[in-house]
Amino acid sequence: MRLGLLAWMTAGLLACSNAPLRGTGDLGVVIQRASGSLQIIDSTQMKAIATVQGLGDLSHASLVYSRDGRYAYVFGRDGGLTKVDLLRGAIVQRVLQAGNSIGGAISQDGKLVAAQNYSPGGVRIFNAETLELVADIPAAYGEHGQFSKVVGLADAPGQRFVWSLFDAGEIWTAELSDPQHPRVEKFKNIGKQPYDGLITPDGRYYLAGLFGEDGMALLDLWRPEQGVRRILDGYGQGREKLPVYKMPHLRGWAVAGRYAYVPAIGAHEVLIIDTETWREAGRIAVAGQPVFVIARPDGRQVWVNFAFPDNAKVEVIDVETRRIVQQLEPGKAVLHMEFTPRGEAVWISARDDNRVLVVDTANFSQRAVLPAAAPSGIFFTSRATRIGF
Amino acid sequence: MRLGLLAWMTAGLLACSNAPLRGTGDLGVVIQRASGSLQIIDSTQMKAIATVQGLGDLSHASLVYSRDGRYAYVFGRDGGLTKVDLLRGAIVQRVLQAGNSIGGAISQDGKLVAAQNYSPGGVRIFNAETLELVADIPAAYGEHGQFSKVVGLADAPGQRFVWSLFDAGEIWTAELSDPQHPRVEKFKNIGKQPYDGLITPDGRYYLAGLFGEDGMALLDLWRPEQGVRRILDGYGQGREKLPVYKMPHLRGWAVAGRYAYVPAIGAHEVLIIDTETWREAGRIAVAGQPVFVIARPDGRQVWVNFAFPDNAKVEVIDVETRRIVQQLEPGKAVLHMEFTPRGEAVWISARDDNRVLVVDTANFSQRAVLPAAAPSGIFFTSRATRIGF
Repeated sequence: MRLGLLAWMTAGLLACSNAPLRGTGDLGVVIQRASGSLQIIDSTQMKAIATVQGLGDLSHASLVYSRDGRYAYVFGRDGGLTKVDLLRGAIVQRVLQAGNSIGGAISQDGKLVAAQNYSPGGVRIFNAETLELVADIPAAYGEHGQFSKVVGLADAPGQRFVWSLFDAGEIWTAELSDPQHPRVEKFKNIGKQPYDGLITPDGRYYLAGLFGEDGMALLDLWRPEQGVRRILDGYGQGREKLPVYKMPHLRGWAVAGRYAYVPAIGAHEVLIIDTETWREAGRIAVAGQPVFVIARPDGRQVWVNFAFPDNAKVEVIDVETRRIVQQLEPGKAVLHMEFTPRGEAVWISARDDNRVLVVDTANFSQRAVLPAAAPSGIFFTSRATRIGF
Repeated sequence: MRLGLLAWMTAGLLACSNAPLRGTGDLGVVIQRASGSLQIIDSTQMKAIATVQGLGDLSHASLVYSRDGRYAYVFGRDGGLTKVDLLRGAIVQRVLQAGNSIGGAISQDGKLVAAQNYSPGGVRIFNAETLELVADIPAAYGEHGQFSKVVGLADAPGQRFVWSLFDAGEIWTAELSDPQHPRVEKFKNIGKQPYDGLITPDGRYYLAGLFGEDGMALLDLWRPEQGVRRILDGYGQGREKLPVYKMPHLRGWAVAGRYAYVPAIGAHEVLIIDTETWREAGRIAVAGQPVFVIARPDGRQVWVNFAFPDNAKVEVIDVETRRIVQQLEPGKAVLHMEFTPRGEAVWISARDDNRVLVVDTANFSQRAVLPAAAPSGIFFTSRATRIGF
């Protein structure tokens, strides 16, 4: 009898495993790139609740979330795809899916995780539950069986993914309502060396930045039959070319109201694009070569960080006046910024200061400082509810 | 020794209380108005996971979520404010905060819950953790000490709330960074009988619908010093007035790209407003008097339900062509529709059929049917991450 009770209680305890019952809506992850680990953070208490080790090479790592907000799918540079349980603070599953990978996306219904790979060049699609390979879409191009590096992978409505082929100068879309049989559409000759892409917050427009040409490529996913259009052609003409210290990240491109704010490559400028005409609507001089240009969730401010040697600075643009209203120096080597879902705070990683700062976006005061080992990307679970994150 | 072990295990079990560990990002609530109860639903499995009783009068009930997605704050018609734990499927706290209440909102930082009351007319603000009263803002107006019914309460960036006074024809804003001392600003003579309000998804514009006049009132929260402006003045002129069977809900107003889609009062029409000029940009004839007009999260479709006698129908507008592309008859007395966060499905309550339907928004097929007792409002936890929900 007493043994029966003990067995029952043991089963109960194993089922609950000591992880506390809690909501996942205010959780997030900070990548600690140097140590292949990550911190799980609570944006309400403004503190770390767990550290998870053993994620491999996390330089340039990014992640997406399961639709319940419990699991992070972390894409490592070494081709590792790791599923992490935020509630237990533990790795659930890890596969080495490629030799060199650069990020990924999760499908609209949350059932498929896609990884974009440099080598072998292509996109691999996995069951989000088990991480079993569901589909493999090599980025073959040309007549000699080459494979292109894949960049700029994004999810789109209608159970689609969109990505760019760096070496081939192509944009591909794939519809995966039947995951075993992806329906792939290819857009060729979109421009030289697309280096990253983004999708607008409504999931309608896909833009690829071009490194090999002066301009960008635009695909209207509501009207794919119209093909890819060149925009901002020659936007850098007549300007002295500077060495590019770090490629800007396009996924962070900011759309605030009708205008998109994008980093100019190799210039100390943020470009403003009118998303109705897709023409340049202005430029804002900033303190360095912009890396991330991100809108506060209400679109009233745009925050910018910079490449070396200006990577200790952060500037805040007021969207209405298009002026810099604040310059911060939050720490050495600012790598990333992430807003809380409704924008009252922004979390900033300062890699070389080994800390993460929480800054109030209304008055720019510092609300918290968290120790972190060489922190890079910061990602909140609210990304699970957004298109293109 | 054995007793010590037993005590330890008992403590462990109490701490975990048998509720399963799970993410909250795909949870939601269906209000069962006739029985004062609610169902907690899982939008991934498409099933109910718990029923919670004892919430009082839930006719016209609505709710908001804590920033971690674990708790729902349910506003009942009887003035009851009930905090429900979605993970345990249980009521945590319940206060009768007014005699007659019509909904509420949660502050940007998640720390304050505001209830809008008909009697006593005003707004009461509670600590989201404890439900203790933090501030009471009676809707006093005129020279004789009257109190107005409060409608159209919404959260806004900058730790603000905005609401309308039905009897007074006023819009008030309150800034609550010091919750004990709300900074209230009043806008008078905004028009007769504002009956509901909404805030645009970016939190910039507050619009109040007017029942006593032909038009709407618009407040630019970035430029409050410019005061309230009348828009769509006389939009119903020259049209035969129909009896209004049910007041439309404005919180569901759809903003898709540059255009807002709003229900016309007492007419079989959806109005299109250009949010750059705030002028009418078109009208779409629909099957009845619209109640909810809601955009799919990607803004490509707008879904409409109707007042009696057309409340068995739902129509889908294609935003690009502005045409009805689908008419559904999902059941008797369709009261509400809620999209999953990334829009692949919509959940529809059919009160008089005692069921909730899950419909695929790509092909309009029925993906699931859930039994529910006289269901009305459906609310997913992703609302916690949005402005104005």
